[in-house]
Amino acid sequence: MACLQSSLDPLVEITVAEDTSRDDQVTVLVSGRPNKEEINRFPQLEKLIIPWAGVPEETFEVLKAKPAIEIHNLHHNAVPVAEYALMLMLAAAKNIIPMDRALRLSNWQLRYETGTASLLTGKTALILGYGHIGRVLAKYLKSFDMNVTATRYSVKFPQAEDRVEVYPANSLRSLLPKTDYLIIALPHTPETDGLIGEPEINLLPPSSILVNIGRGAVVDQGALFHALKTKRIASAGIDVWYNYPKNEESRINTSPADYPFHELENIVISPHRAGGLNTDDTERLRMSHLAILLNAQARGDEMPNRVDRQKGY
Amino acid sequence: MACLQSSLDPLVEITVAEDTSRDDQVTVLVSGRPNKEEINRFPQLEKLIIPWAGVPEETFEVLKAKPAIEIHNLHHNAVPVAEYALMLMLAAAKNIIPMDRALRLSNWQLRYETGTASLLTGKTALILGYGHIGRVLAKYLKSFDMNVTATRYSVKFPQAEDRVEVYPANSLRSLLPKTDYLIIALPHTPETDGLIGEPEINLLPPSSILVNIGRGAVVDQGALFHALKTKRIASAGIDVWYNYPKNEESRINTSPADYPFHELENIVISPHRAGGLNTDDTERLRMSHLAILLNAQARGDEMPNRVDRQKGY
Repeated sequence: MACLQSSLDPLVEITVAEDTSRDDQVTVLVSGRPNKEEINRFPQLEKLIIPWAGVPEETFEVLKAKPAIEIHNLHHNAVPVAEYALMLMLAAAKNIIPMDRALRLSNWQLRYETGTASLLTGKTALILGYGHIGRVLAKYLKSFDMNVTATRYSVKFPQAEDRVEVYPANSLRSLLPKTDYLIIALPHTPETDGLIGEPEINLLPPSSILVNIGRGAVVDQGALFHALKTKRIASAGIDVWYNYPKNEESRINTSPADYPFHELENIVISPHRAGGLNTDDTERLRMSHLAILLNAQARGDEMPNRVDRQKGY
Repeated sequence: MACLQSSLDPLVEITVAEDTSRDDQVTVLVSGRPNKEEINRFPQLEKLIIPWAGVPEETFEVLKAKPAIEIHNLHHNAVPVAEYALMLMLAAAKNIIPMDRALRLSNWQLRYETGTASLLTGKTALILGYGHIGRVLAKYLKSFDMNVTATRYSVKFPQAEDRVEVYPANSLRSLLPKTDYLIIALPHTPETDGLIGEPEINLLPPSSILVNIGRGAVVDQGALFHALKTKRIASAGIDVWYNYPKNEESRINTSPADYPFHELENIVISPHRAGGLNTDDTERLRMSHLAILLNAQARGDEMPNRVDRQKGY
């Protein structure tokens, strides 16, 4: 809170949920999953800010009755997610999971095996869903002299953006055969559901590496499992899944998928941590981005990061 | 061999060990660990090229009787080692080893823990031994807007090199308290033996991360173990060790250190793989760098990468 206050214009007044004395003055609510009562509590409410990027299904539902309320989200997590995506690319490329596991058992054999590691330098990356995260990631990848390509739904013709070739989403199949690293940064929408299935994976080179930091359902889990199991692709780094813990108790026994990905050597698996939830670093970024939105409102400027309710992001 | 030949000047003639017909014409030998007979076999020998960076102790020994023979080495591995160093920094910063291990057991608890991940963005890196590897690594780190500092033995006064602050080696202790990521890229010499011990580690901030891709003996193993065990520093990524397999049989049962690093959660351990030995990518880089040295010889230019026998690198 102190961190947020220090970045705010003096014009912005903050109140907290416990304080009901100014409910009729509140124009902006910061809440990820408000229920109907919370929305109805503020008669002057103009804008809801979700303090992260992905808008929960139930929040769209709750706001259906209030079409005039704008939904905004925060992209402060583009930096941690892009760092995490690069970590997964490198960890998968260098095969660090089995290396670490074997050496902990005093086994050095992998040191002497051929063909178990790839470079990023000079290779081609394809980023699906070229938005906030993709632009940060592209900056890192260019430092490796990678050839960075990308797709974006809103692009109609191929275009160059700061040394990145951005293609329309329907160019996917023609791009896959040239892709060494496929990075999925797409939200889950009807258009992206199961977008990467067996036919798409079969277009990738056998040496390719797939990283998903978007949403699990964009990649068909059976197709991914079989491609890794049969070495149809070299490896993968996966942070987003098909099954999530439904409550605190199930955090210790929720298998992330319906296939035994945990048996595979050529995958790095991670419990949806790319946003770097709960770290001091992330909270600092979140507060400074929240301040940008609140300051815009206070100054009468257009508030950035408006969510398109139709598209869902 | 075809790959090497394609990068060579027509002036360069190559012969292989099995062919003894041209032994008296050989002026350059490419061999990592030649014995005395191999050296004496070539009466015209002017130069030995070690096809990697670190010159083996026994090779210096063998060549003691031949002070006129120049030793050269290859730094083609600067790119794979720098990529590997970044992988270890990110893997340690994001705590991926315990995350992957727990999720393979359907355990998501780490997802909800605080303070287990750090950003690179905006932090300060200190690279000890700013040579070929450090310069490549610095290029990557600058893409994260990191503040990159470094030390080099041959520097007498602090100087800026392409946005990196390079300090004399004796500035170490004044640099450590400001360091978030300490990357050790030093060779093992009498000056660097045990350079990072308990007093040095105690100067690092508790949130700092240590990565060693130089040589194990530069870091005191007991001091490192205790610092990690007691969380005196946050985590480490270690590719270079204290004990190595002495033969093929012992590859499955050689503990890399005298302390149980394998019991620690806050470390990524790797069996000296940063050079990316044996991958196609690395061999391509190695051959193109070897060609640069051989072409220089053929043209009568000074051959690059001469090793200083006194300094040992």
